[in-house]
Amino acid sequence: MTNDEFRRYGHQVVDWMADYLENIREYPVLSSIQPGDLVDRLPAAAPERGEPMDAILEDFEQSIVPALTHWNHPRFLAYFAVSGSPPGILGEMLMAALNVNGMLWKSCPAATELEQVTLSWLRQWMGLPQEFFGIIYDTASIASMHAIAAAREMADPEVRTRGNTGRLVMYTSEQSHSSIEKGGITLGIGQNNIRQIPVDESFRMRVDILRERMEADRQASLSPFLVVATVGTTSTSSIDPVPAIADVAEEYGAWLHVDAAYGGAAAVVPELRGVLNGAERAHSLVVNPHKWLFTPIDCSVFYTTRPEILRRAFSLVPEYLKTGENPRAINLMDYGVQLGRRFRALKLWFVMRNLGHDGICAIIRSHIGYAQKLAALIRSHRDFEVAAPTPFSLICFRYRGSDDDNRALLEKVNASGKAFLSHTVLNGRFVIRLAIGNIATQWQDLEEVWDLVKQTAAREQGDDAGLPQAVN
Amino acid sequence: MTNDEFRRYGHQVVDWMADYLENIREYPVLSSIQPGDLVDRLPAAAPERGEPMDAILEDFEQSIVPALTHWNHPRFLAYFAVSGSPPGILGEMLMAALNVNGMLWKSCPAATELEQVTLSWLRQWMGLPQEFFGIIYDTASIASMHAIAAAREMADPEVRTRGNTGRLVMYTSEQSHSSIEKGGITLGIGQNNIRQIPVDESFRMRVDILRERMEADRQASLSPFLVVATVGTTSTSSIDPVPAIADVAEEYGAWLHVDAAYGGAAAVVPELRGVLNGAERAHSLVVNPHKWLFTPIDCSVFYTTRPEILRRAFSLVPEYLKTGENPRAINLMDYGVQLGRRFRALKLWFVMRNLGHDGICAIIRSHIGYAQKLAALIRSHRDFEVAAPTPFSLICFRYRGSDDDNRALLEKVNASGKAFLSHTVLNGRFVIRLAIGNIATQWQDLEEVWDLVKQTAAREQGDDAGLPQAVN
Repeated sequence: MTNDEFRRYGHQVVDWMADYLENIREYPVLSSIQPGDLVDRLPAAAPERGEPMDAILEDFEQSIVPALTHWNHPRFLAYFAVSGSPPGILGEMLMAALNVNGMLWKSCPAATELEQVTLSWLRQWMGLPQEFFGIIYDTASIASMHAIAAAREMADPEVRTRGNTGRLVMYTSEQSHSSIEKGGITLGIGQNNIRQIPVDESFRMRVDILRERMEADRQASLSPFLVVATVGTTSTSSIDPVPAIADVAEEYGAWLHVDAAYGGAAAVVPELRGVLNGAERAHSLVVNPHKWLFTPIDCSVFYTTRPEILRRAFSLVPEYLKTGENPRAINLMDYGVQLGRRFRALKLWFVMRNLGHDGICAIIRSHIGYAQKLAALIRSHRDFEVAAPTPFSLICFRYRGSDDDNRALLEKVNASGKAFLSHTVLNGRFVIRLAIGNIATQWQDLEEVWDLVKQTAAREQGDDAGLPQAVN
Repeated sequence: MTNDEFRRYGHQVVDWMADYLENIREYPVLSSIQPGDLVDRLPAAAPERGEPMDAILEDFEQSIVPALTHWNHPRFLAYFAVSGSPPGILGEMLMAALNVNGMLWKSCPAATELEQVTLSWLRQWMGLPQEFFGIIYDTASIASMHAIAAAREMADPEVRTRGNTGRLVMYTSEQSHSSIEKGGITLGIGQNNIRQIPVDESFRMRVDILRERMEADRQASLSPFLVVATVGTTSTSSIDPVPAIADVAEEYGAWLHVDAAYGGAAAVVPELRGVLNGAERAHSLVVNPHKWLFTPIDCSVFYTTRPEILRRAFSLVPEYLKTGENPRAINLMDYGVQLGRRFRALKLWFVMRNLGHDGICAIIRSHIGYAQKLAALIRSHRDFEVAAPTPFSLICFRYRGSDDDNRALLEKVNASGKAFLSHTVLNGRFVIRLAIGNIATQWQDLEEVWDLVKQTAAREQGDDAGLPQAVN
């Protein structure tokens, strides 16, 4: 492709992107393709000769777009409804063109230093102390795995050379994200040594049980080395009592990691800063700008007050990567598993500057406001109930019927293509999850979804029992 | 930002990108900023109010660009001179706009299925057997870590629940990439249980010593569980004798992982397919399209013949991510640590289709041809020597002087801004590395670099000894 062609196709792609985002409501949120359809549709072998970009872009529209789940859709309300934003997309475009690997300061000074600058900015927005050192990883799964590794290093400095001993035990709540357990499995801690502490009626870790378990393990000559608290659990967005957890972790000399991948974003809003109470005592914390800070995936921010331990756990510098020593020339590869590091700070910088603190606060406030308003509507409807507290912008609710009724309701709503909700199980019951997090979501979108849910439920009820349709 | 503004800035950014790539030779390859300069230059706090994109893009040019190392520069010859390409950049642009997370088939069918399609294509290009299941990770560091985890799972199926035992031992050459050792440290294997097997005079693993060590470990009641062979080591691009290593690994029932992150790309060229001889017997293999297949960072491809073991090691499906069972609806999150998964197959698809098999082969052939030609020039110069075989496009060479002379030569060449080379240490001696991998590199670039190296060395010699300048 000549440079002129690249310019021309670049403009063409930008127009497609702008049209796409402008018309996003016209797409079905969920694709209607069946598993294997796209594989079957595409050629079984790659082309021998290069193909013109026109043909490729045409196939992109004809074959790929219909097979997409549209995370940009304002009525994508499943999982955590993460969202990019226009400045973030512009940042990704430049990242792709620059194509740097910021493994070393020298391999791209801008990538390393802009990461320090943006993470200092974000730290201030979140009200975290200055001693929190920040680094960007790709995902919260990886960030949390690094927390576990750093905690292990603190508890057992010989682990690097000797390997695991099997005496280390970590603690998290039974509502914590699966990546915590997965991280423990990956690092060779073993599921038997991962205690899933029960939660209270609001799905928050039971600190009394945490202490009991830690004490029992210590009595059994095991080493409690890590407690993971969550601010904004995945199932319900519940907030663990971090101050009390910090007390217990401190008592046992354990590393405290706060998983605020979702909820941490809310702390950017001054009046919501309290959601991170106690986190200032954590050894590490993760917050995902690609979740609720409008930065395209991937961008997961990890803060730690013990960067020297993180570095001790991971630094391994072969001759071919040695550079001169300069205390201001940090080599971020020393702080993690991954040698390759994209210039993710660039998109975060674009987003933080273009939206500004007040702009981001306004969007997060609107999402939480919508969630409160919608939760009130659900609560006041005779056929529905809200199944968990709604501290952020995630609503867990259910139709007053069987699990199968709720499952059928969710499937019908999603099959409409008008919205995408997900589910969880709380206290053994199937519950529908509706998470608001897209920069483009308006109250009207949520009204439409609520109407769709009510109508679908009413139709189901009518079909099943021949009864007149329920009304609100 | 309104949609019209996004469109306008998108076009502006595309023009900047096209200008940048067109004028890339005018930039100094290495930035001349000092550590901390960018941090000091940028505001200490984020803006309270959103700023116009014009101002941000202006700052990007004024502050960020001068602090870049230009990986796009055709005379960036350090590390492995990885390279994106125009179709890859277009792919990244669309990825950023779509912003999907392909963790589940359902969360983006296109991401999952296009990954299967492109990796099947690439597998065919590389001549690997059909049973190689492919998955894209972010980096080779992570891919190799998954190889170690899968090998551990095969050797010790109870590791997931019980944790590591400390009896597992892994083997790689002392020339293997640092990420292999780092992966072993991370997984809790411990450096004491990672055997770095010596290499022969061509920097290839000594298979006789491998067997001795495995036998000795078995005699000591340890469990040899993994051998990592490298096709294209980082220091010299040497190729381990994979067929003989496969014999030994098989004899001891160990997992064989082939790190072909760099060298695997060459196997796409039919007459070079032999570099992967023996790899068809591997349990897993990594190749990085973001290294030498012109795909923007990040895109690391992992193949395994034992996907069910990889899945057993990593699958952990919480209720909120459960979907219906369908054998054709693969959930790629089950095959790794990371839940979040960018739509990386899209850029790979764009690159493979737009360049085509013959287009990619032509570029790789040209790089290898340039390297052979340049190595011959270096070899024939009285003041220089080639320090290792050049099977691919990486040349290790040194000036016939002290290590300090070579270090000074490298620093002066890099300080010129006209080229960026890196170094390694071979047999205790400082060696300059020159790696050719950029899609835009022409023979003339290499002639210029060679002239620069010769002239700099001659000037050094002249300065030091008052001798007349060396000539070729």
